[in-house]
Amino acid sequence: MAAAAAWITRLNGQQTRDSLIDDVVTANHILAAQEIVDAFGHVSVRTAPGAGKYLISRSIAPAQVTAGDIIELDLDSKPAASEKRTSYRERFIHGEIYRVRRDVMSIVHCHAPALIPFGITKIPLRPVYHNSFFVGEGVPVFEIREAGGDTDMLVSTPELGRALAKTLGSKPAVLMRGHGAVIVGKSIIETVARSVYLEVNARVQAQAMAMGQRISYLNEGEVKKRIEDPDPYGRAWDLWKRQVTQAGR
Amino acid sequence: MAAAAAWITRLNGQQTRDSLIDDVVTANHILAAQEIVDAFGHVSVRTAPGAGKYLISRSIAPAQVTAGDIIELDLDSKPAASEKRTSYRERFIHGEIYRVRRDVMSIVHCHAPALIPFGITKIPLRPVYHNSFFVGEGVPVFEIREAGGDTDMLVSTPELGRALAKTLGSKPAVLMRGHGAVIVGKSIIETVARSVYLEVNARVQAQAMAMGQRISYLNEGEVKKRIEDPDPYGRAWDLWKRQVTQAGR
Amino acid sequence: MAAAAAWITRLNGQQTRDSLIDDVVTANHILAAQEIVDAFGHVSVRTAPGAGKYLISRSIAPAQVTAGDIIELDLDSKPAASEKRTSYRERFIHGEIYRVRRDVMSIVHCHAPALIPFGITKIPLRPVYHNSFFVGEGVPVFEIREAGGDTDMLVSTPELGRALAKTLGSKPAVLMRGHGAVIVGKSIIETVARSVYLEVNARVQAQAMAMGQRISYLNEGEVKKRIEDPDPYGRAWDLWKRQVTQAGR
Amino acid sequence: MAAAAAWITRLNGQQTRDSLIDDVVTANHILAAQEIVDAFGHVSVRTAPGAGKYLISRSIAPAQVTAGDIIELDLDSKPAASEKRTSYRERFIHGEIYRVRRDVMSIVHCHAPALIPFGITKIPLRPVYHNSFFVGEGVPVFEIREAGGDTDMLVSTPELGRALAKTLGSKPAVLMRGHGAVIVGKSIIETVARSVYLEVNARVQAQAMAMGQRISYLNEGEVKKRIEDPDPYGRAWDLWKRQVTQAGR
Repeated sequence: MAAAAAWITRLNGQQTRDSLIDDVVTANHILAAQEIVDAFGHVSVRTAPGAGKYLISRSIAPAQVTAGDIIELDLDSKPAASEKRTSYRERFIHGEIYRVRRDVMSIVHCHAPALIPFGITKIPLRPVYHNSFFVGEGVPVFEIREAGGDTDMLVSTPELGRALAKTLGSKPAVLMRGHGAVIVGKSIIETVARSVYLEVNARVQAQAMAMGQRISYLNEGEVKKRIEDPDPYGRAWDLWKRQVTQAGR
Repeated sequence: MAAAAAWITRLNGQQTRDSLIDDVVTANHILAAQEIVDAFGHVSVRTAPGAGKYLISRSIAPAQVTAGDIIELDLDSKPAASEKRTSYRERFIHGEIYRVRRDVMSIVHCHAPALIPFGITKIPLRPVYHNSFFVGEGVPVFEIREAGGDTDMLVSTPELGRALAKTLGSKPAVLMRGHGAVIVGKSIIETVARSVYLEVNARVQAQAMAMGQRISYLNEGEVKKRIEDPDPYGRAWDLWKRQVTQAGR
Repeated sequence: MAAAAAWITRLNGQQTRDSLIDDVVTANHILAAQEIVDAFGHVSVRTAPGAGKYLISRSIAPAQVTAGDIIELDLDSKPAASEKRTSYRERFIHGEIYRVRRDVMSIVHCHAPALIPFGITKIPLRPVYHNSFFVGEGVPVFEIREAGGDTDMLVSTPELGRALAKTLGSKPAVLMRGHGAVIVGKSIIETVARSVYLEVNARVQAQAMAMGQRISYLNEGEVKKRIEDPDPYGRAWDLWKRQVTQAGR
Repeated sequence: MAAAAAWITRLNGQQTRDSLIDDVVTANHILAAQEIVDAFGHVSVRTAPGAGKYLISRSIAPAQVTAGDIIELDLDSKPAASEKRTSYRERFIHGEIYRVRRDVMSIVHCHAPALIPFGITKIPLRPVYHNSFFVGEGVPVFEIREAGGDTDMLVSTPELGRALAKTLGSKPAVLMRGHGAVIVGKSIIETVARSVYLEVNARVQAQAMAMGQRISYLNEGEVKKRIEDPDPYGRAWDLWKRQVTQAGR
């Protein structure tokens, strides 16, 4: 019930600024504890439904983020004039996706090793179990060479951010060839949980494929029915938050 | 000796209510520590041999369960009228199996990643070593589409619970396609240990299969001889219980 | 230097009884921490070079063993008349190997998952790197069906213990089909380190084989040169002992 | 910014001796925590750009190294006459590489299991993602049999050290058949981070190869662009250092 309440509060955009900042800090710590990010990777939250601002850490490792490290950026991924600190070089991932995806309230960028093989081969991710049902909505692959030729692989300009957002389209996640992934959602709880279960899906799918037989994925009807679940991940957020809080991160 | 005594006490149904509740809490924590469950999954115990009631947590993550979270449900998976809290949406897994399996005293439901590949391919689990001998009794796969067409994959109705119980039949465990598994036993010690070693069996079998040669599984005679062991897992319960108690869960 | 001294002290049999008991307790904790054993498995040490007695824990999980749990057994794996406690059902593994292998001062029995695939297929373990060079001396596989027909898989009689010792022959380790492995050495340091690196070898060999190309194993000459190293593992024992001592096990 | 400053300080050789020793101790602990080394393996740092001396621990496990264990060796890998302690038998790896690679300021030697398969097959490591871009500069394999015939596999003489340095050439790392790897860099931060991401690259590449399709590696142009990044790993060093400091190692 606490979980459902938290979920609804976030969906309705009824959060104070302190609560939003707490969410971003918690999400950073959860993603590190779940090994979705290591020293690199980032997570942001939009300040309110429809708002043109988002909160993200300055450029440090997720496990080290505290409330004092959170910066507000606009959709051009620029801070207010008074802000002297800078965020991640790839902050444009966030700004450009928020610009075109009004439904998106939170974004994760990660380099989880299990996801890499699906970005560097032509094998599509497909949904292996109910917790990763959203994979059935489609997870496209961003080929940065098509957008920018030979680059340093980083989405470090607005142009590359826009190209990435275009490949993402209306999907829940996009893989980045030779780099990682971006995961989005209509709340920070959903985005973080999708990040965790996208990684599990990749590991399980690779293992199932190695067994050399036809695989029965969730079908379209099952994915649609799962989408109707109003709160598929609240219980996970509650647990993960408690775990990182107890660990004293 | 302590272990054997614990085992016999449970088999004879000579437990106080407090002891039963302590067992369910401990089992939740063990399953989380052994990574058989994550934020999701549940474990229950029948209140006494032949009884039409079982104990299970309200709807929270296994690692967070305390004695105060345990609810008593009947075989329709309904609590007493005075109980305001609800248990898991998939509680019918428990009620419907207890209804038809008089020998079952405890049930685990989990989504351990290593089990998923065997539910989404046609490759049967087979017993790779003595600790998972019970796999030799057979582990069928539940295809929820046959029972309910396209669903949200959850066993959230009595009808789906009955269909799952039917597929389980007299076996020690059943895989659920695109979802996870249900494991049963004649005591909570047996059910938890079977859950742990079912997962190990899946990992080892997948690894052995990847080596591309004929595999020598336990044969029928060996499985039968192992079944005669009166207490194959008591030592494991003792260790796991101590570990979760020390961890202060 | 401390390590080398420890190594020599053990090889020369210049240990007090308290020191031997401390070694067995430490070895139990190391094997648990290194995940070579779980709730099951055991380790023993011969009381002195050529002696007909060995020290082993009573029947509890390795991580729980303390000095007070250590029992002395003879080569028939029987304790003194005054001893009321019993050791593991598979204690005959130890007694029967000590009987025929005068060079062996310590024995480990484990069920490490990575070893199981090599016991249930016809693929021999071969040495992939210098730390597991002893694999090059040969690791045979014990098929208990040849010795006892269909059994409960346990080496729970003197006869089965003798059959296992015969398959082991003069080798450093023997795999047990559908069960696990037994590792021996001329000191407890060597036996524990061999247990750890046998497991690494199995994981690495399986991974290398999965890559589908010819593998270049250590050759006979290299294995022979490695055998001449007087103290290949002392540094590891020092580290592992400190780790389990600090963990307060 | 702290990270960038640390990076530049090291590149310019503006470190005090205490700071250098602290770096070596920290690097040892990071490599152990990241499971790049176990009880074996070592890391060194050159005392100053162009200097003919380097700092390395005496012969103990990396996790146990403290400031008091650090010894200074010359390019013949000999200590000052007053130094009674000895370093690792394979110290010649360090001395001989520093002798011919003026650009190298730090060296790691490890036996990470994931690297072994690429040393014992003919499959070259190739760069799977941006964090391991340096793999694209080439990672040759050292076959010790060509340099020394059948040996005990250890680089325990100046001659073998020179042969290894020759195979390394101008590359960032070299695999050693049936043994492990050596990783070099222009600062200790770079060398440690390369060690971590070389291991990730091996795991991911093996997984991608197992999926049986053409793999799209970083191309030459992308590798070149990544090389231009002045500080690709400072954030990782900051995090890892904090983690090992907090763990009280």
